[in-house]
Amino acid sequence: MATQQLGRWASSLDYLSLPQPVIEAAIRSFQNSLGSILGGSNHPTTQRTIKALQPLFGDRKCTIIGHAELSGSAVSCDLQHAALINGIASHVHDYDDTHLHTVIHPAGAVVVSLLALAEYLKLEEGRIVSGKDFITALVAGIEIGLRIGNAVSPKHYDEGWHITGTVSPMAVAAASSNLLRLTPEQTANAISIASTQPVGVRVHFGTDTKPFHVGRAAQNGILAAMLAKGGFTAAPDALEGRRGWVEVLGNGSNTLSEQVNQLLQLSEKSQSSAVGREIWEIEKNTFKPFPCGIVIHPTIDACVQLHKEHDLQNIKDLDKIDSVHLRVHPLVLDLTGKKSPKDGLEAKFSVYHGAAIGLALGSATPAEYEDNIVNDKRVLTVRAKVTAEVDETVHSDEAIVTLTMQGGVRNEKHVEHAVGSLDRPMTNEELHEKFMSQAIPVLGKERATEVESMAWEICDVRDVARLAKAAR
Amino acid sequence: MATQQLGRWASSLDYLSLPQPVIEAAIRSFQNSLGSILGGSNHPTTQRTIKALQPLFGDRKCTIIGHAELSGSAVSCDLQHAALINGIASHVHDYDDTHLHTVIHPAGAVVVSLLALAEYLKLEEGRIVSGKDFITALVAGIEIGLRIGNAVSPKHYDEGWHITGTVSPMAVAAASSNLLRLTPEQTANAISIASTQPVGVRVHFGTDTKPFHVGRAAQNGILAAMLAKGGFTAAPDALEGRRGWVEVLGNGSNTLSEQVNQLLQLSEKSQSSAVGREIWEIEKNTFKPFPCGIVIHPTIDACVQLHKEHDLQNIKDLDKIDSVHLRVHPLVLDLTGKKSPKDGLEAKFSVYHGAAIGLALGSATPAEYEDNIVNDKRVLTVRAKVTAEVDETVHSDEAIVTLTMQGGVRNEKHVEHAVGSLDRPMTNEELHEKFMSQAIPVLGKERATEVESMAWEICDVRDVARLAKAAR
Repeated sequence: MATQQLGRWASSLDYLSLPQPVIEAAIRSFQNSLGSILGGSNHPTTQRTIKALQPLFGDRKCTIIGHAELSGSAVSCDLQHAALINGIASHVHDYDDTHLHTVIHPAGAVVVSLLALAEYLKLEEGRIVSGKDFITALVAGIEIGLRIGNAVSPKHYDEGWHITGTVSPMAVAAASSNLLRLTPEQTANAISIASTQPVGVRVHFGTDTKPFHVGRAAQNGILAAMLAKGGFTAAPDALEGRRGWVEVLGNGSNTLSEQVNQLLQLSEKSQSSAVGREIWEIEKNTFKPFPCGIVIHPTIDACVQLHKEHDLQNIKDLDKIDSVHLRVHPLVLDLTGKKSPKDGLEAKFSVYHGAAIGLALGSATPAEYEDNIVNDKRVLTVRAKVTAEVDETVHSDEAIVTLTMQGGVRNEKHVEHAVGSLDRPMTNEELHEKFMSQAIPVLGKERATEVESMAWEICDVRDVARLAKAAR
Repeated sequence: MATQQLGRWASSLDYLSLPQPVIEAAIRSFQNSLGSILGGSNHPTTQRTIKALQPLFGDRKCTIIGHAELSGSAVSCDLQHAALINGIASHVHDYDDTHLHTVIHPAGAVVVSLLALAEYLKLEEGRIVSGKDFITALVAGIEIGLRIGNAVSPKHYDEGWHITGTVSPMAVAAASSNLLRLTPEQTANAISIASTQPVGVRVHFGTDTKPFHVGRAAQNGILAAMLAKGGFTAAPDALEGRRGWVEVLGNGSNTLSEQVNQLLQLSEKSQSSAVGREIWEIEKNTFKPFPCGIVIHPTIDACVQLHKEHDLQNIKDLDKIDSVHLRVHPLVLDLTGKKSPKDGLEAKFSVYHGAAIGLALGSATPAEYEDNIVNDKRVLTVRAKVTAEVDETVHSDEAIVTLTMQGGVRNEKHVEHAVGSLDRPMTNEELHEKFMSQAIPVLGKERATEVESMAWEICDVRDVARLAKAAR
């Protein structure tokens, strides 16, 4: 029942039924995701993937985002490899997005799949995918993925599944089916075929295989939709049935029918007035202001503010710091208590590094998680002065940082809700800065500006394939 | 530890260390699997897959087994799609092989991967894969898959995982790594990357998606090996670690370290005399004499014998049957108690159909599970006369069939161990007949004979890619 209902919902969703706030949320998710893909496009993990799999590339119809030249030829590859590589890029810096209730990073896998499909359809079938088609499919996929995720949260993740990789195949299948205009039954089959290909156990966190989960999930979802389009059959009750996805992977936590019922009501209610409108799950997506574990974000936020207020420009200014004291949520030292990280990867698990780059450099982008910055003299100078204390009364999006200068001047910065949290979402201006910091090094300023404006104005884009091409 | 040990074992296994009975078991597994692939090559599920995915095919380096022409051009496709399609074909008739303790169908995914890799390596790198290379890699993959399967059996399967699809990615990764001559560390990474891509929940049994699990598992394992070869990293303790494969998918049943220790001892012991030799898991692989659930096999076996003894040639002979009574193991009616199957798929779950084709036609190959045979007058005539009774004292590979003819002549056939069981393995002659019944309709008699003799003599084959090409 649930699987078929999801199929019907995803296949019938159209642009006109989307409430304006949902469209705006989808655009923000897309803009943020595209920036993350660009930002991860030159990461060593992404490079390794391209190099390892290049001999397998098929017809070069789809863009490897952020790449201009490879072995002398323009970089593109087949549909499936484009989805894999761009999917890896989207997640490799841990700098994408988070649906806080499920810990799903929702946009990456769906965005890369739809971009690649738009290029594929143009060259293979002569069909032009519009920005409205794209956004509609994106909402269909993300909404279905998050609903399924809600149904098995938090147990599924807690027990060791990387939920982004297990749910995204279904999200991508739903999105791709909507874009490919599959029938309700075919769409249910696509979701069903996708559900039997979960990717990702958490033991791989901290290795290349973590972002691989996102890329492979994208491929699995596309494959499922292509097979379903060709009449391939799968269990009609793949999610809710005996020995189905929820029973086997959900480990007893299951509110699927409730989630599906809420989903079905969305479309009805969206027809009526905005008063009492149900919030769609995609509206609860949050964007990462900093490329590290979310528990560090309030500390970094406070330290960046202190950096600006004290105008801490160079090593002489930093030498004048006497001490930095953090009061943080109990999970912070558990998850990110690494005092002396040796490289960028370890730094992602260090609240001390987060505080140090905030104070010393005033920003925390992937550049501040490069190995050379982790061992930069200014950063080390500040880090040595940071102490941290757990405070049971501090919330997960809250931190209190006390900066004491030599001579005794003291400044306490209390961040009640970190930037990027649900209570203080990143503004479009902040998303713009985040995008540019990732896109300019790859595309140059002019092209980055052009691509970003296409992202914001995606609903007016006539040919999404052209957008993808512009991002190489 | 276990993951690294498996990597070392798989990468260091060489032909000279294989005991002769292990080589013979591997050859039988290969011959049987190749027949199954040919037998499934024209199945509608396989055809649907080819049609749906043909637009995505890359460089046509690898053979789609059993296909000569498609849209006018010789049929071959890229490495990954060849593995998928041939993998689906291998399992689509449920006519492959079974490792009884784990219920894994071990050979299919590994065989299709190694055949495709042999063709790929020849064209891409100019490397010729010999039959000895092939058999060594096959043993490495199957042995590792079955050991991992043992570690989580029976709970993993009982709780809803299609164990063939969850374990085979690792088996294929190990086999491919051996063939690609990866280092021990790379091989461990390949197994690790494969482990995070389990395929298959059991809700899909009875649909196209069941055999898809085998094909997709093959692709996942190949991808893992290619990435590992390129330096891609994954958890060093992917199987045994916290939130690793065994913990997340094994649901508490876990004898992995014990299984790995036994595996490591195999190679040492094989150096010494045959006395007290440990049996390898691949030697416990059994081959399906009939394309249906294994619990029906003793009944079919008995009925085929009765068919011959009574020379039941035509409808007049069959009309003389008064009654057929089965005494069977308790699971038989539970799993295969469908009295009046409507089509071939339902017939696979009907002990009554099994008895009827055994008696009326004297054989049970995929041809006797075609829809038209399920509704053939001779079959229906006999089926109506079959009654079945559960007998708690009857073993799972045992059946007692009483045939009573009009006039009162009665013949009781007691099969103590069905053909194909561990106690009465299929002979090479029976495997030959099974192979030919599947290969001749696809390749014709001459080519089928040629391909089969290459399979039996695989250890003397100089170029496995040529064998693959011969099977188109």
